[in-house]
Amino acid sequence: MKTAAVVTIGDEILIGQVTNTNAAFIGQELSEVGVEVTRMIVVGDEYEEIMAAFREYYEKVDAVLVTGGLGPTHDDITRKVVADFFDVPLVMDNSVLENVRDRLAKRGIALRKVNEEQALVPSGCEVLMNHWGTAPGMLFDEDGKFFVVMPGVPHEMQNLMREYVIPRMKQKAVGQVIKHRVLRTTGIAESSLYELLGDMGVLLGGKAKLAFLPSQIGVRLRITVKSATVEGADSIIGEVEREIRAKAERYIYAEGEVEIEEAVGRMLAERKLTISVAESCTGGFISHRITNVSGSSAYFDRGVVSYSNRAKMDILHVPGDVLEKFGAVSEEVARAMAEGVRKISSADIGISVTGIAGPTGGTPEKPVGLVYIGLADSAGAVVERRVMPDERLRFKDRVSQAALELVRKRLLGLS
Amino acid sequence: MKTAAVVTIGDEILIGQVTNTNAAFIGQELSEVGVEVTRMIVVGDEYEEIMAAFREYYEKVDAVLVTGGLGPTHDDITRKVVADFFDVPLVMDNSVLENVRDRLAKRGIALRKVNEEQALVPSGCEVLMNHWGTAPGMLFDEDGKFFVVMPGVPHEMQNLMREYVIPRMKQKAVGQVIKHRVLRTTGIAESSLYELLGDMGVLLGGKAKLAFLPSQIGVRLRITVKSATVEGADSIIGEVEREIRAKAERYIYAEGEVEIEEAVGRMLAERKLTISVAESCTGGFISHRITNVSGSSAYFDRGVVSYSNRAKMDILHVPGDVLEKFGAVSEEVARAMAEGVRKISSADIGISVTGIAGPTGGTPEKPVGLVYIGLADSAGAVVERRVMPDERLRFKDRVSQAALELVRKRLLGLS
Repeated sequence: MKTAAVVTIGDEILIGQVTNTNAAFIGQELSEVGVEVTRMIVVGDEYEEIMAAFREYYEKVDAVLVTGGLGPTHDDITRKVVADFFDVPLVMDNSVLENVRDRLAKRGIALRKVNEEQALVPSGCEVLMNHWGTAPGMLFDEDGKFFVVMPGVPHEMQNLMREYVIPRMKQKAVGQVIKHRVLRTTGIAESSLYELLGDMGVLLGGKAKLAFLPSQIGVRLRITVKSATVEGADSIIGEVEREIRAKAERYIYAEGEVEIEEAVGRMLAERKLTISVAESCTGGFISHRITNVSGSSAYFDRGVVSYSNRAKMDILHVPGDVLEKFGAVSEEVARAMAEGVRKISSADIGISVTGIAGPTGGTPEKPVGLVYIGLADSAGAVVERRVMPDERLRFKDRVSQAALELVRKRLLGLS
Repeated sequence: MKTAAVVTIGDEILIGQVTNTNAAFIGQELSEVGVEVTRMIVVGDEYEEIMAAFREYYEKVDAVLVTGGLGPTHDDITRKVVADFFDVPLVMDNSVLENVRDRLAKRGIALRKVNEEQALVPSGCEVLMNHWGTAPGMLFDEDGKFFVVMPGVPHEMQNLMREYVIPRMKQKAVGQVIKHRVLRTTGIAESSLYELLGDMGVLLGGKAKLAFLPSQIGVRLRITVKSATVEGADSIIGEVEREIRAKAERYIYAEGEVEIEEAVGRMLAERKLTISVAESCTGGFISHRITNVSGSSAYFDRGVVSYSNRAKMDILHVPGDVLEKFGAVSEEVARAMAEGVRKISSADIGISVTGIAGPTGGTPEKPVGLVYIGLADSAGAVVERRVMPDERLRFKDRVSQAALELVRKRLLGLS
């Protein structure tokens, strides 16, 4: 079994009321066992639409995974279509009926006719008992094709996948292992990173794929490898990672789903250093990110959101004449803020940002998007000037990322 | 134009690394203009796969909306497939090239060859200028078919949809009008709200649908109406809204996509009041939310993230003996924090939160999720005790929502 299609059934997905997280979950699980999802399809609660999707993909791929349309209400018609697709009748499954009755009884609800219908399954299918809900999974595994139908309730589907479907597919997934590794970079544009890494063809030697996934906080590099064995895949992925790191190490702050505040937090905790934050245009977002990390109280003591000049003077002791002479958005004020917050908190590191979020408030000399990012530590202070005009929340994302990146660089001796 | 298909391109979706929020957004937008999405399809970054999807759905539906694969790197091949599909060459569009050059220049980046390629468009398409990124949208509107390609970066796609695609589709959509209105509530559980509103059948008189959409920050009520005319739909929706407001007005803080920080911000600005924040367990998130609103500097002067006891004493002047006697998470400390931040900032209103985010740090008397929310103004101080255990970020959402709701209630004379 090499290829798969994921079919999601439900009008609520088509009208955008619900995001299709089920397909993402299934895609991730299959990818991990080396089965390649080649298509995801969403169809509405319509007999003909569902039937057409079954016919098309049963033909095209080795495995079809279906979710949705197994509930007790009138718009749930999946089981009828499945029975007709395999040309078998629907029959009552007594163990499923028991399960439905038990589950409802526990909630003090009597069994109704609509619930009984949830125990109807296509004759000849393997029933996947649902211990997390009322609708069972239904599996057909014949003639080299694998076809499974699961309820659309996310945690029920996830449990059925983990309990029955994935173990079964693992046995059948032959020939290849697919592995991914994500390296997270920041402080470099997608196109510059692309040039820096050089000829991908040579880098990858045809054995791996490299994807660039940009966002406002940086570019993710995703390495994908297909191999006959786990060891083979790991070895190639390691080789590609080393090649990339040899060229772009300084921009890589983490692997996988680790955010930069977590990477920086680990470095601070390891070195037993503390940090304090003085922020203006980010309005509390840097402190928020730092404190999103469980255990951050070990290295984070306080943050000051000094939105007004008065607040900068009162709390951070930024001199009034510096504010007047250079303006609140200036290198000098960023430095005084970083030094000020470091001093009042006795932290090892003080960081600061002051900038113009926009959309108003810009001038030719100080445009919207201008920001000064300061860092003070025992060795002195540095200030970076950046211009990153963007929509208000994205501006906060980018500025906070740059500030945390400055801490990372400083701790690595790069700034 | 009645039917549409949404085609999402990208391996990252198929392997489940990214959830397909773009398709959900497009589904929602089309639903609102009365166009029915009959299929959503995801394909990988493979020439043949993309071409096959274009061929299949261009035939089947009136409108095909495509996202993804327009970036500057080698895995982005959508524009080439589009050109081949319409059997036209790729040509350089000078206005797009200018836009790419300008955007990069603003960020201090020189134009590279890979960026130049983003200005290649299929000859004969309508270019949808992307003012939010580098890759333009491309539209073909001929022979009764509508075909549009947009970049996969969510905010760029969303802006292109709102600016160009939806207005154009509105002109072409025929038959019925579907209208939605969302009323946002907080401070009341879904089941209590359901009871409070009473018999929905009577309320709606069969003319509208009402959906309850709960989240950690409150319940959204979505009214949906189908009608032959815009006026008809507006009239019914207005009628249903009045019925709901008559029963639940005090819990409704806004309509549509307006967050509570914006609703509260408007009230503060209108009354020319100022606010300051002292927060512990939310770690800067309340200040962040307040400053997400453009113009917030008119009423927000400063925030203090007093994570440690030391910070609470130093900056907010919370007495050391109060901290020692009652503990940092206590009604007394919440009151002292609110009064302290109000005093040092000379703001009209000071708000504070102190609590236990968890997962560790709870005791039988002070469990994880316990939080005290304080508010001080010229009339005195109030403190609310709440227990809202949740995952770290959701806890911040809930606590900040409750704090902003306390301000709203106070301003309305309800607290």
